[in-house]
Amino acid sequence: MKVLVTGFEPFGGEEINPSWEAVSGLPDEIGGAEIIKRQLPVTFNGVRKILPRLIVEERPDVVILTGQAGGRPNITVERVAINVMDSTMPDNDGFAPEDEPVFEGAPAAYFATLPIKAIVRALRGEKIPAGISNTAGTYVCNTTMFTALHTIAVAGMETKAGFIHVPFSHEQALEKPRPSMAVETIRKALEVAIRTSLRG
Amino acid sequence: MKVLVTGFEPFGGEEINPSWEAVSGLPDEIGGAEIIKRQLPVTFNGVRKILPRLIVEERPDVVILTGQAGGRPNITVERVAINVMDSTMPDNDGFAPEDEPVFEGAPAAYFATLPIKAIVRALRGEKIPAGISNTAGTYVCNTTMFTALHTIAVAGMETKAGFIHVPFSHEQALEKPRPSMAVETIRKALEVAIRTSLRG
Amino acid sequence: MKVLVTGFEPFGGEEINPSWEAVSGLPDEIGGAEIIKRQLPVTFNGVRKILPRLIVEERPDVVILTGQAGGRPNITVERVAINVMDSTMPDNDGFAPEDEPVFEGAPAAYFATLPIKAIVRALRGEKIPAGISNTAGTYVCNTTMFTALHTIAVAGMETKAGFIHVPFSHEQALEKPRPSMAVETIRKALEVAIRTSLRG
Amino acid sequence: MKVLVTGFEPFGGEEINPSWEAVSGLPDEIGGAEIIKRQLPVTFNGVRKILPRLIVEERPDVVILTGQAGGRPNITVERVAINVMDSTMPDNDGFAPEDEPVFEGAPAAYFATLPIKAIVRALRGEKIPAGISNTAGTYVCNTTMFTALHTIAVAGMETKAGFIHVPFSHEQALEKPRPSMAVETIRKALEVAIRTSLRG
Repeated sequence: MKVLVTGFEPFGGEEINPSWEAVSGLPDEIGGAEIIKRQLPVTFNGVRKILPRLIVEERPDVVILTGQAGGRPNITVERVAINVMDSTMPDNDGFAPEDEPVFEGAPAAYFATLPIKAIVRALRGEKIPAGISNTAGTYVCNTTMFTALHTIAVAGMETKAGFIHVPFSHEQALEKPRPSMAVETIRKALEVAIRTSLRG
Repeated sequence: MKVLVTGFEPFGGEEINPSWEAVSGLPDEIGGAEIIKRQLPVTFNGVRKILPRLIVEERPDVVILTGQAGGRPNITVERVAINVMDSTMPDNDGFAPEDEPVFEGAPAAYFATLPIKAIVRALRGEKIPAGISNTAGTYVCNTTMFTALHTIAVAGMETKAGFIHVPFSHEQALEKPRPSMAVETIRKALEVAIRTSLRG
Repeated sequence: MKVLVTGFEPFGGEEINPSWEAVSGLPDEIGGAEIIKRQLPVTFNGVRKILPRLIVEERPDVVILTGQAGGRPNITVERVAINVMDSTMPDNDGFAPEDEPVFEGAPAAYFATLPIKAIVRALRGEKIPAGISNTAGTYVCNTTMFTALHTIAVAGMETKAGFIHVPFSHEQALEKPRPSMAVETIRKALEVAIRTSLRG
Repeated sequence: MKVLVTGFEPFGGEEINPSWEAVSGLPDEIGGAEIIKRQLPVTFNGVRKILPRLIVEERPDVVILTGQAGGRPNITVERVAINVMDSTMPDNDGFAPEDEPVFEGAPAAYFATLPIKAIVRALRGEKIPAGISNTAGTYVCNTTMFTALHTIAVAGMETKAGFIHVPFSHEQALEKPRPSMAVETIRKALEVAIRTSLRG
């Protein structure tokens, strides 16, 4: 079994991205499965180029994409990705698309194929606050999730895929009264999500 | 040197109180000082009886009172306690005072005598999100802080005292999207606050 | 031209629903178009039965569905409805579906066909705080929006449709520190949305 | 009878201050009392100079100071002012005091002498969301409240005084998802507060 796990580079003025801090700390093997870790750029065009190739070449059994959702207090497992890119905040390329489709002609949305409810239950079982989220936004996170699910659908693969948003790390929230979580707890959450997805 | 550290019993329908979870896990000695740990009842009358006796008998050099501030995302060091008890939510005795003084004839307020800014700086230095709070409310937490500072003032003691509010623990926020913090991180925060107060 | 505007009955322990308070106060004609006002039940099965019939019989040019989003501070125009009913909170029939489709075999999602960005711009132009929302949740509001868009798509109609979430009214937030808006302002917002949709 | 009501000039990058928008719209007479309206600068030194003179010269029966509390969703009547100026955000003079007293040698705090609970009840009775606040912060608003109460105490006057914080106006929150209130509603709230204070 093979699992592809991605995190993002920093964006929005932050110096780190807790998603990559957590992903890069994962072991190379979990539950007998090989863990492939990749950092993605926070760019609409970058992820739409890099991710399809990565998935088709690596043919992972599970794809878990992760990103920072600053302000959310818990681990949120995304339910759905929508076919739209819409942002007034430019990405790390300076690109700010308005109401453009991620892929022309693709469906309006894809539901995550990860066992999202089982992941939430498993996280809570490990004393990690977690819930389902019904929107991954319309910025690069949603584009990444949509790209992965569309690639898998078009290629007729059986790969289970989805997106997990993580809170700010403590380091990012030292001086601002915003919810945050220890990177080590986020890392453990991803490990729990991977184990659950391999079983599910 | 002697440090008195208190936490509360659970209240408001919660099954645990993260303040006591953290306090009870502290070592018996920190930086050469003896650590006296006490659990306080969440009752206006209880703390006003217990705390003055405890302080006068133990004569600690430092008093750090702690309590749960559900909803706050970080460790908050309280700046001031005010001479009022006012709550529509009954305490654990069923008592809900309206606009009564904590102590008749006492001043309107006392400022914390702990080095509150130094504690915040030290916490951030240890990668723990923290800030100053300008209100401990008008429930039992504020009454506890006011009682300690008034007792020390009336007795002419040199004891430094103050109150630290802590977030929900992860266990309390598993299924609700509220900010929370690991008990172990809260425990470490209290240790940092104690060390800073002993120096300050 | 004909516009169908709906609001909901109260739910979740509230005694009023600001969406219906606002809708019921609309005039019977706006910009030369006939305004048909209907109150919908907060039930998954009710709206899936009532709404398709209503749309097919009335054949409105515009459908604006509205509902309460307690806690949101501004008028939010929904971007997308997803094919899922998922709630731990029972509806007014006592029904709490878990991960069921709104309509078996329907697409994963429909985008609103109202001019959502133009509505937001027009609202702000009238000094009413507004924004786009990327999730209508998975409760009855989303089911209503999905039902309308699916009905229109299946029937091959040209009707423009979408959903607008409104904040608590002031009456609902008198004693709780939650964002709220005057019913009269909400009513005006709906009128602006109708005028914009008729033009758009 | 004479009532002094103050609002502030804009600060923090805002172009208006809803407190002054509301105050300037008050009539010149309410309930038979003369209403004196003044705009105050958002400067620690300005209010400490201007306000004592104004109160001593005008000898009002009631002083209602108002200011913007961006982010709060309702009208909040302040309970207490504390003897500290502490801000990392400079005031409109560029002055950012750290832990300095408002007045050297003054008490730690003063409680509002307005009938704060009666004002909250009256506001709710007029369908305006309202509550008590236990902190006016440590910026210019608190300094203003402290200055008024200290001036009145030192001068041995019988004037009732206090501070009311108001939310952002709708105009300020058009594009940001923050709680806001119509200026007209804020204006009405101040009128209710004045009437209640004259009776109370």
